[in-house]
Amino acid sequence: MMAVTDHSSANAGKIVISVDAMGGDKGPATVVAGISASAHKNPDIAFILHGPEEVLRPLVERRRGLRGRVDFCDAPDVVTMDDKPSHVMRHGKGTSMWSALESVREGKATVAVSCGNTGALMALSVIRLRKLPGVDRPAIAVLWPSSNPQGFNVMLDVGADIRADARDLLQYALMGASYARNGMDLKRPRVGLLNVGTEEHKGRPELKQAHELISRFAPRADFDFVGFVEGGDLPGNVVDVVVTDGFTGNVALKTGEGTANMIGAHLREAFKYSILSRFASLLALTSLRRLQKRIDPRRVNGGVFLGLNGTVVKSHGSADATGVSAAVKLAFQLAQSGFSEKLAARVASAAALAQDAEKNGGGPARDASDKGQATS
Amino acid sequence: MMAVTDHSSANAGKIVISVDAMGGDKGPATVVAGISASAHKNPDIAFILHGPEEVLRPLVERRRGLRGRVDFCDAPDVVTMDDKPSHVMRHGKGTSMWSALESVREGKATVAVSCGNTGALMALSVIRLRKLPGVDRPAIAVLWPSSNPQGFNVMLDVGADIRADARDLLQYALMGASYARNGMDLKRPRVGLLNVGTEEHKGRPELKQAHELISRFAPRADFDFVGFVEGGDLPGNVVDVVVTDGFTGNVALKTGEGTANMIGAHLREAFKYSILSRFASLLALTSLRRLQKRIDPRRVNGGVFLGLNGTVVKSHGSADATGVSAAVKLAFQLAQSGFSEKLAARVASAAALAQDAEKNGGGPARDASDKGQATS
Repeated sequence: MMAVTDHSSANAGKIVISVDAMGGDKGPATVVAGISASAHKNPDIAFILHGPEEVLRPLVERRRGLRGRVDFCDAPDVVTMDDKPSHVMRHGKGTSMWSALESVREGKATVAVSCGNTGALMALSVIRLRKLPGVDRPAIAVLWPSSNPQGFNVMLDVGADIRADARDLLQYALMGASYARNGMDLKRPRVGLLNVGTEEHKGRPELKQAHELISRFAPRADFDFVGFVEGGDLPGNVVDVVVTDGFTGNVALKTGEGTANMIGAHLREAFKYSILSRFASLLALTSLRRLQKRIDPRRVNGGVFLGLNGTVVKSHGSADATGVSAAVKLAFQLAQSGFSEKLAARVASAAALAQDAEKNGGGPARDASDKGQATS
Repeated sequence: MMAVTDHSSANAGKIVISVDAMGGDKGPATVVAGISASAHKNPDIAFILHGPEEVLRPLVERRRGLRGRVDFCDAPDVVTMDDKPSHVMRHGKGTSMWSALESVREGKATVAVSCGNTGALMALSVIRLRKLPGVDRPAIAVLWPSSNPQGFNVMLDVGADIRADARDLLQYALMGASYARNGMDLKRPRVGLLNVGTEEHKGRPELKQAHELISRFAPRADFDFVGFVEGGDLPGNVVDVVVTDGFTGNVALKTGEGTANMIGAHLREAFKYSILSRFASLLALTSLRRLQKRIDPRRVNGGVFLGLNGTVVKSHGSADATGVSAAVKLAFQLAQSGFSEKLAARVASAAALAQDAEKNGGGPARDASDKGQATS
């Protein structure tokens, strides 16, 4: 049903991103416009595009910048936003989403990008790419605009799973730190655990337990553990990686986005109020654009699925071409840094550490430093 | 140790608010400035002011508008932000916070206002005012700026307790609806349950259970249950009362505040960028002020403790005079509407309903409507 066609070799040496062209709210033309923008900016990128070839080929041929940089992988079916994950797991074989993951599974690309149904994409990713050895629950990480020097921090999990015990939270800390190192070029990320207060006695039992676990692992894992952080620290500069369960993370993410959207709407309304304020807003336009560029969620578009054999970037379902291009840029950056392999090595060495610690009856194994972990 | 002094009777017929003058970050002068602003706007308000009288009296005497409208209640000690709730419960008797609650307990005021330590205030409120019969966990409710016609919605719990089971969430729904009716003049509030998706099969088990419980009670309790809502709905117009556990609510609240603060800082920075943008921001000043008035957290200052014999308004620790005045305004509105009594009646009738339902083996008692509940 699916076959890679038009496998031109002009893309040798380029980094190949596997892109699900279907399933976004705005259709494949928007996805093609997005990858075209990326191709324009980045000469080292190439694509495998998944979906009905008779639909996609004309869209691609209209873009001169994409000439010779796109391989097509024909997949006639589409996962819709209403499809239940369980249904897609059983019947999704002919879909562009399945096909996009297949390219990663087969090693033709190291990162896949999709704007489709998050639940279905996570379910398919788990059964097709499989979890990394040592990972119980994969997580979705997002970049959050903040006053950090890098302009963002990482938060995970934002909705892969609604539960997380202390060991899961430790794995999120390791995976998030690895993501920050490779996706944001931070040598020694600061990791915090989201709670309702920063005192150590506060919060749910699993959080106190996770606090202890992460404290013990941090010195061996090349990150700084700053302890508990609060919701107000998400856009701040005390932390680079915020660790939380998928329920809390999802509520926080949507609350932050909702608040930013509301303020944006009020801002537009405030400036429409009078002729003077309309004039002022014209003058203020560059300032406002500069602001928008900083807080625009489209520019940080891309939740990343962590803890699998391969990396999957989930773009917003409603992403426009700018949003798709931002997700592709992130995918490229992660592919180029060899993130998938580094994360796998990091998780494996943490699992070994944990085993040693258990054998030795608690506490990180003293001799673990002899193992010469790569910074990943 | 404490005694009400200077009990002038000029305040007969006025609504008396019990105010803890100490414990805020900005000291008693700010609290006095805040109540003075309220007194200026509202001729029907009077105060009992708690704290060291020798400190407070000179501050009050400097404000002409407060003449004859303040009774002093001397309390030499202060609860600091670092005091542990457990310590304050045992040793807090001489504090202004304890004293402020005492005036409510004795019926001299129906609502108390404090800028102090939230944990200590909740702990003292529970032991001094006691929980309403039928309430297992009191909750803290806040007003959240939204695109509702009333400009706000209510969210609870935002941090009284980090846990909440299905029955607690039902009580929060009842208490939140009652607050919306009395604090926001909404006849039939729309109540939603915060979750990570709006489909009924999503979320934690206690949420599915709470969904069922609230659905059953809604028709008897004069509110519309809109089912699950998401973080993005908090600033929106699909719901008036958002019900959640104190952990999630606290994270959402602080995330929303943090996001708003970050955008505000970016906005100021964007306008500082060039001479032209400085000029533009001068022109835009009225628009920006209008915006600030809508999203200013000081203007919605006041978490309300619900589920106790009496109402306590918790103002932000960092509240300035505007913030204190907003908290006092809310306290006045709740006192004037007879909120405490109405809420108690509402919770009692719900407890009766629940008992009937249990006797009849599930489902709200059919004959409950005969009991002629007051809309409260």
